[in-house]
Amino acid sequence: VLTSEAEPEVDPAAPGDTQEGRRAALGLERLVFFSDAVFAIAITLLVLDLKVPVLPGDASAQAIGDALLAQAPSYFAFALSFAVIGLYWLAHWRKFQLIVRVNQRLLLINLALLGSVAFIPFPTSLISHFGESLTTAIYAISLAVTGLLGSAMLWYAWRAGLADPGVSALVVRHYTFRGLVLPVVFLASLVVLAVLGPTACQVSWIAIPFAQAAVSRRYGERARLPV
Amino acid sequence: VLTSEAEPEVDPAAPGDTQEGRRAALGLERLVFFSDAVFAIAITLLVLDLKVPVLPGDASAQAIGDALLAQAPSYFAFALSFAVIGLYWLAHWRKFQLIVRVNQRLLLINLALLGSVAFIPFPTSLISHFGESLTTAIYAISLAVTGLLGSAMLWYAWRAGLADPGVSALVVRHYTFRGLVLPVVFLASLVVLAVLGPTACQVSWIAIPFAQAAVSRRYGERARLPV
Amino acid sequence: VLTSEAEPEVDPAAPGDTQEGRRAALGLERLVFFSDAVFAIAITLLVLDLKVPVLPGDASAQAIGDALLAQAPSYFAFALSFAVIGLYWLAHWRKFQLIVRVNQRLLLINLALLGSVAFIPFPTSLISHFGESLTTAIYAISLAVTGLLGSAMLWYAWRAGLADPGVSALVVRHYTFRGLVLPVVFLASLVVLAVLGPTACQVSWIAIPFAQAAVSRRYGERARLPV
Amino acid sequence: VLTSEAEPEVDPAAPGDTQEGRRAALGLERLVFFSDAVFAIAITLLVLDLKVPVLPGDASAQAIGDALLAQAPSYFAFALSFAVIGLYWLAHWRKFQLIVRVNQRLLLINLALLGSVAFIPFPTSLISHFGESLTTAIYAISLAVTGLLGSAMLWYAWRAGLADPGVSALVVRHYTFRGLVLPVVFLASLVVLAVLGPTACQVSWIAIPFAQAAVSRRYGERARLPV
Repeated sequence: VLTSEAEPEVDPAAPGDTQEGRRAALGLERLVFFSDAVFAIAITLLVLDLKVPVLPGDASAQAIGDALLAQAPSYFAFALSFAVIGLYWLAHWRKFQLIVRVNQRLLLINLALLGSVAFIPFPTSLISHFGESLTTAIYAISLAVTGLLGSAMLWYAWRAGLADPGVSALVVRHYTFRGLVLPVVFLASLVVLAVLGPTACQVSWIAIPFAQAAVSRRYGERARLPV
Repeated sequence: VLTSEAEPEVDPAAPGDTQEGRRAALGLERLVFFSDAVFAIAITLLVLDLKVPVLPGDASAQAIGDALLAQAPSYFAFALSFAVIGLYWLAHWRKFQLIVRVNQRLLLINLALLGSVAFIPFPTSLISHFGESLTTAIYAISLAVTGLLGSAMLWYAWRAGLADPGVSALVVRHYTFRGLVLPVVFLASLVVLAVLGPTACQVSWIAIPFAQAAVSRRYGERARLPV
Repeated sequence: VLTSEAEPEVDPAAPGDTQEGRRAALGLERLVFFSDAVFAIAITLLVLDLKVPVLPGDASAQAIGDALLAQAPSYFAFALSFAVIGLYWLAHWRKFQLIVRVNQRLLLINLALLGSVAFIPFPTSLISHFGESLTTAIYAISLAVTGLLGSAMLWYAWRAGLADPGVSALVVRHYTFRGLVLPVVFLASLVVLAVLGPTACQVSWIAIPFAQAAVSRRYGERARLPV
Repeated sequence: VLTSEAEPEVDPAAPGDTQEGRRAALGLERLVFFSDAVFAIAITLLVLDLKVPVLPGDASAQAIGDALLAQAPSYFAFALSFAVIGLYWLAHWRKFQLIVRVNQRLLLINLALLGSVAFIPFPTSLISHFGESLTTAIYAISLAVTGLLGSAMLWYAWRAGLADPGVSALVVRHYTFRGLVLPVVFLASLVVLAVLGPTACQVSWIAIPFAQAAVSRRYGERARLPV
């Protein structure tokens, strides 16, 4: 709803020695660096959820150790969210190796994506504190939405002619599907949640990097992709 | 009050192969990246206001769900502030597609703009907690001020000859007016606040993206603007 | 104590078409962008000290207004620290328009400067909460140290031959002295603190932008400086 | 586990006037700027652990002073973590003066490194609050892991042919060993912890910059390294 009909795109691939080209290149750079900053802040704010146990300053190592162990779900949530946001950042990085122009609509899809990334510390906090079904489902859905927006962004860019013309449809399809691995696993884990309960569901998320790796290797071999 | 009379501006459009030009380009880049960082941090800090409900770790899904629903104003405030800061970032991005030189005064106007952006999480917190007139008015005024500073910055840059010479007065006027849409809607909502109360006022803010889109489309068609 | 004797400096002014020059330019860019990020985060974290009053969600506008007014020292501290960090960022920006090479020692002086910037939210918090002499003195000294480190950095860079050779001693001396205005005013305010007490001392800080402007204008006219 | 077999690396050293080379250069830049942002946020979040004493607003300077002095471990932890993260950032900066290409595996090692950096505010908080053995050991191990990952990253990059071909094995070995100084000192301090207790262990960390400086000077003279 926020775009104008006339959307000639900004082309940073224009020769760098023109005023126009330099400005367009700065525009694309700003977009990716702003995105990087949001990813970096969201990923680093996760640590604020690791709380120092409320104990007197001269508590024994035993008491502190017990209190730290009782926070195990927090460490799991920190590590998992860090890994997933990190993988989403990598996917964003990879997509902007292909996207060479931006328009208003792409900027807005990217903003929505960043909004979902900035939101992640909240569901992470929720699963750190509560071990039941509702918060587990909220977490899975939140992280799935981020992944779906990422794939949608690349797909839109390709359809709107914002990708490098040298990039084949095969490559775009590869990255779009690869970007769907994480959201699909998160959504599939909702079935595990319904059948086996929240603990089994959270354990199933550990499969994420392996699923990602298997798909990446498979497609990577066929398409000879850079990263 | 902070500027010197003699303000020859730094021109990053100077040929990139001179020492001078390279330094000036780095200077403009630093300005926009510093601005991007402030926008990115302000937009990401909003999540810190979404609090985990204070309930025992083994609370039921029912209890947690009720507590989460009771925080509905927080989610509304998060989404609204994220969208508005995002749109202001887009506007800033767009303005620096036109501005190609900086001087001391522009740096100071930009700092004031960033100060108003960095302040936004506070009124956002206020409307998350309180549903009455005073905090609603503070929020509307804070966000209007940010928008007004943005338009003022572009207008100043154009008057001071800091914009790309190839940019027409029509385009600058377009972006200046377009940047006024958000602040005008926020100020107009104060009338709604006075007449219909805080809830109606906050609901009226949902019109913001539509108003922005309508104006953007209208002007965009006439001036054939990039984004 | 952390430097090696042999410190050939990295020269980003080397022709950009060599591998060496491109890497050196990226090195200088990283230094300034890392610095920008620390400045931007410190300046944006200040808002976390503006607290929502602890009142029930349906408190009256009257009660909320009173509670917000009672926090007046927090707004003063936010605005002052934002302005001062902003001016220090501008000074840093200006210095790296002159510095074109880095060495180990400069990197360490810059780190110390960033450490003092990152520390500023703490004394800001202190003067938001307490109105007496000790915290006022801690604030003044903290902000003076940041300014002194900034001037020291430029002075070292010039002595070590890291500045652009085209920059005259007059210009370096100008920026070094100009950078001393803020720390000198903060240190001088300690006299006001001793004689007239903490409130008068804090009020005297409002003179800072005017003092800065007067000195900038004076020197700027004589040396015809860019910003 | 996350890499694909086919990993042709992205080469930002390719001539800047091709589409390919420009995109690859932007890719490497994004990696380092994302890393810079995580370092910058982690280093600046440390200040959030310096708490304003819980005292009435009109407390006496005496009472505030006593309360501030009682927080001495917090200032020590802030300064130490700032210095160590700062030195690790410098080491990262230095490594990417040598690394000119990236591949999937390098991106993942770098993410793991950033994860350990983002985690540092938590052990810092722990040693601010508790003075006993367990938290001291957790701190030492956390910071050692960050250093080890940094050295591992450079070593991998060199073995995988991602370093500048002009860089000799001597230089890579130098930086790899130099990067081991901090983790080795932290691990060695565990012996001090076991024998002499947590206070002696923490005091021993003050030796870190001196150890680093001695090694840097020694190797720097032999290899004539830039920084």
